[in-house]
Amino acid sequence: MTTQLHVQIPATSANLGSGFDAVGIALAFYNDMYFTEEPDRQEIVITLEGLGQDSIPTCFDDNLVGQAMKAVAVKNRQFLPKGGTLRLVNRIPPSRGLGSSSAALIGGIILGNALTGSKMTKEDMLSLATVMEGHPDNVAPALYGGLAVSIMVDGRTMTNSIPIEEDLSFVTVSPQIEVSTEKARQALPKTIEYQSAVFNVSRVSFLISSLFTKQYDRLQYGLQDRLHVPYRIRLIPGGSDVLQAAVNAGALGATISGSGSTLIAFAAGQEDHIMHAMIHAFSAHGVEAEGHILKCSNEGARIIP
Amino acid sequence: MTTQLHVQIPATSANLGSGFDAVGIALAFYNDMYFTEEPDRQEIVITLEGLGQDSIPTCFDDNLVGQAMKAVAVKNRQFLPKGGTLRLVNRIPPSRGLGSSSAALIGGIILGNALTGSKMTKEDMLSLATVMEGHPDNVAPALYGGLAVSIMVDGRTMTNSIPIEEDLSFVTVSPQIEVSTEKARQALPKTIEYQSAVFNVSRVSFLISSLFTKQYDRLQYGLQDRLHVPYRIRLIPGGSDVLQAAVNAGALGATISGSGSTLIAFAAGQEDHIMHAMIHAFSAHGVEAEGHILKCSNEGARIIP
Repeated sequence: MTTQLHVQIPATSANLGSGFDAVGIALAFYNDMYFTEEPDRQEIVITLEGLGQDSIPTCFDDNLVGQAMKAVAVKNRQFLPKGGTLRLVNRIPPSRGLGSSSAALIGGIILGNALTGSKMTKEDMLSLATVMEGHPDNVAPALYGGLAVSIMVDGRTMTNSIPIEEDLSFVTVSPQIEVSTEKARQALPKTIEYQSAVFNVSRVSFLISSLFTKQYDRLQYGLQDRLHVPYRIRLIPGGSDVLQAAVNAGALGATISGSGSTLIAFAAGQEDHIMHAMIHAFSAHGVEAEGHILKCSNEGARIIP
Repeated sequence: MTTQLHVQIPATSANLGSGFDAVGIALAFYNDMYFTEEPDRQEIVITLEGLGQDSIPTCFDDNLVGQAMKAVAVKNRQFLPKGGTLRLVNRIPPSRGLGSSSAALIGGIILGNALTGSKMTKEDMLSLATVMEGHPDNVAPALYGGLAVSIMVDGRTMTNSIPIEEDLSFVTVSPQIEVSTEKARQALPKTIEYQSAVFNVSRVSFLISSLFTKQYDRLQYGLQDRLHVPYRIRLIPGGSDVLQAAVNAGALGATISGSGSTLIAFAAGQEDHIMHAMIHAFSAHGVEAEGHILKCSNEGARIIP
């Protein structure tokens, strides 16, 4: 019997506005993975299409998808098929703050689990992915879909997923620059004004309750942040201007996706206009950028039958 | 024509767990106010029933309800009736962190507005009440009902109200001590660890999303706080023990109501047991306390027809 599996994993945007380290969203923009078992082969061969062909290792042991598949096999105390082809179709730009490595991990975990007895629950998968990635920011929305709110409790990740309706769009604009994770981390302070903490608590409460009550015109306030955006936006050339351009063009609010370099705007109309205004603002700073107009992926990663 | 008006205003609990300064709730436990116009009189006479008879001024000009009524009349450019009786039936214990003064203000504003042309919108009322009270923490849930999330934007208060279902109960236990607002304020630090701010952002996001998705067993994590409870619980004799007693007795979580002295537990069952455990824990510290088992008031303050 030949096993054929197709898994689809969404792009994700973490650290949304005031929701630093807690709030992320899955976007309907996917990487696809196809695994075909081939008993005649003695190894799993990776073929790569789309983005990242010059940077992503295609040796199974060095590839993040392969590593996740193997970690699951160990956890399930089963063996992966000896031979086969893993075809990766990558659309999520790597190292741009859209969760490409989390997509690789989640896809690998789902594939690995399906190939070795499907013993893991969704929570098990989330915890393994969090350990491998180092934080739940992107793996949680990638796995659960929707707007994902995550906390860590005694080393385990817990996620609440809230569905987001079709009338809300997300405009992502990714400049052709990388923000070093190390630099993004160093940009954050060790202590903070008490009032800044209070500010973010109120803003993130307002962000989530505005989404819940579908008062989209209130998102602009809920997205306001004093914990990371003021520190990290400087690492993105033209970043502040691009955020402002998005709002001027009609966005409900705009912020950094993950730790950048992608910027993300919330919109309920004017999406084309917003995207072009953001790209134009980057280009005024000599930075080339690529944009997408996306909906939320409420399903998250899944096996396509 | 004789005007008769009856207004009912709920008790409120502010600073809920991780939602310091932002998240409050209206409780189905009310003060009633009855205004009867009496053209023969040359003044408005206040009669007081229930709690606070030894501390609340009954002279119209010195009474908070009267002051709010007059402020609204000025705002609406109308006169209040010259003569009448204002009957106040107080059930909310004063100075215990259950929003008694906010109830007085909101009730006075609603009465005053109804008596002078009903020109104020709900937002106008909220803003006036916030100015008079100094913060929106209690006036917002008292006016809007439900779980109220408030932010300040350019001096105006904005509130999102989320309805809370009947299956969730709130156990309030009020000890016979007052916490000075001044001391409660001084107990808070000026700066805090960055990680504490991040902790509270994730917890309050989780609190609101757990309520939204009705995952009540997750509220215990959403209520965890590092911004105010650790600093203020020391001002309430036996406070930490009472919070622990609530959880041990089956509460979903417990925290300080406002800045105290009332403590509030969230529950979905075992309410009697929780209330008695909390009262008992206070009494072990030599503190007498009174408890209530309440539902959320989703309507908020209203004129009873």
